[in-house]
Amino acid sequence: MRQKPEVLAREIVASSRLFRVEEVQLRFSNGVERTYERLVGRGNGYGAVMIVAMVDAEHALLVEEYCGGTDSYELSLPKGLVEPGEDVLAAADRELKEEAGYGARQLEHLTELSLSPGYMSQKIQVVLASELYEERLEGDEPEPMGVERINLRELASLAQHPQFSEGRALAALYLARDLLIQRGVFSL
Amino acid sequence: MRQKPEVLAREIVASSRLFRVEEVQLRFSNGVERTYERLVGRGNGYGAVMIVAMVDAEHALLVEEYCGGTDSYELSLPKGLVEPGEDVLAAADRELKEEAGYGARQLEHLTELSLSPGYMSQKIQVVLASELYEERLEGDEPEPMGVERINLRELASLAQHPQFSEGRALAALYLARDLLIQRGVFSL
Repeated sequence: MRQKPEVLAREIVASSRLFRVEEVQLRFSNGVERTYERLVGRGNGYGAVMIVAMVDAEHALLVEEYCGGTDSYELSLPKGLVEPGEDVLAAADRELKEEAGYGARQLEHLTELSLSPGYMSQKIQVVLASELYEERLEGDEPEPMGVERINLRELASLAQHPQFSEGRALAALYLARDLLIQRGVFSL
Repeated sequence: MRQKPEVLAREIVASSRLFRVEEVQLRFSNGVERTYERLVGRGNGYGAVMIVAMVDAEHALLVEEYCGGTDSYELSLPKGLVEPGEDVLAAADRELKEEAGYGARQLEHLTELSLSPGYMSQKIQVVLASELYEERLEGDEPEPMGVERINLRELASLAQHPQFSEGRALAALYLARDLLIQRGVFSL
């Protein structure tokens, strides 16, 4: 493992309700000095969760909502922030109820994914949910989300869908598919 | 397709060298009003590119570099900004030479992935590179990157590697694998 650069100074240079930008002065082990910026601290400090919810042996749920970043209605996986006092699986179950109208009897943590490690600190926990049942909780969404299904055999096509783009959601779907194949409960 | 919310007002509320945060007042078609924040305009406006570079029939290149966002050395795919006057494939070839020390005789655009469409505008173009040859260009990296290889059969294990976390890179690797399987040049 390489020796991490030494932090010479750090300072918050911009902040808003959701975002905080930290400027960091670094000296690498070869003596080179650089100024980096990193985005930190969105959310409440308890992390975030993204759910691959299997509605049957081969279909996962997608939700459709207005995305302010891209100014478009996008399909992606249900996701949200973990709330104080919740563990990751409880947060996944709650978000699934709020966004898609389903609870899950089986919840399993798969992995942690980062967004853009070069300049963002954000990570998200990927949870596989199954044995679903209908239950809706009121969330804080401005309007109801659309709910759709994707066959795990069609992930390459999903990547070309004009309303789907989120890289980490695609990674989560592929990871879930690999795991289900490995367990012998799904095949291509 | 649903009717997009009406934009009532927008304002830049924070900015730094790399980041700009826009606050947007929205009215959804059901009358509900919300204030969103979105991260816009990192980079030079020409976009970014991420490369799955096949060094042989089953191995793709990974690079290891210090990531300021997570404050750790991470493995991921070569990537970078498209420069003025470059197309996406030329940018992919240049980044590959700068970060991994290889050029590619075959370059092919696979798809576009977003980072976090709910609150970020950023997108990245995924390029598949093959028929590699050794050629190094000087980049702007503070220190040389490590270069490693990943077998496309081992993507589920890669997701568990303590030095690998980037969701969109994992999605790009899975997409490339699916395409190579579909073409009959790779099999699991």
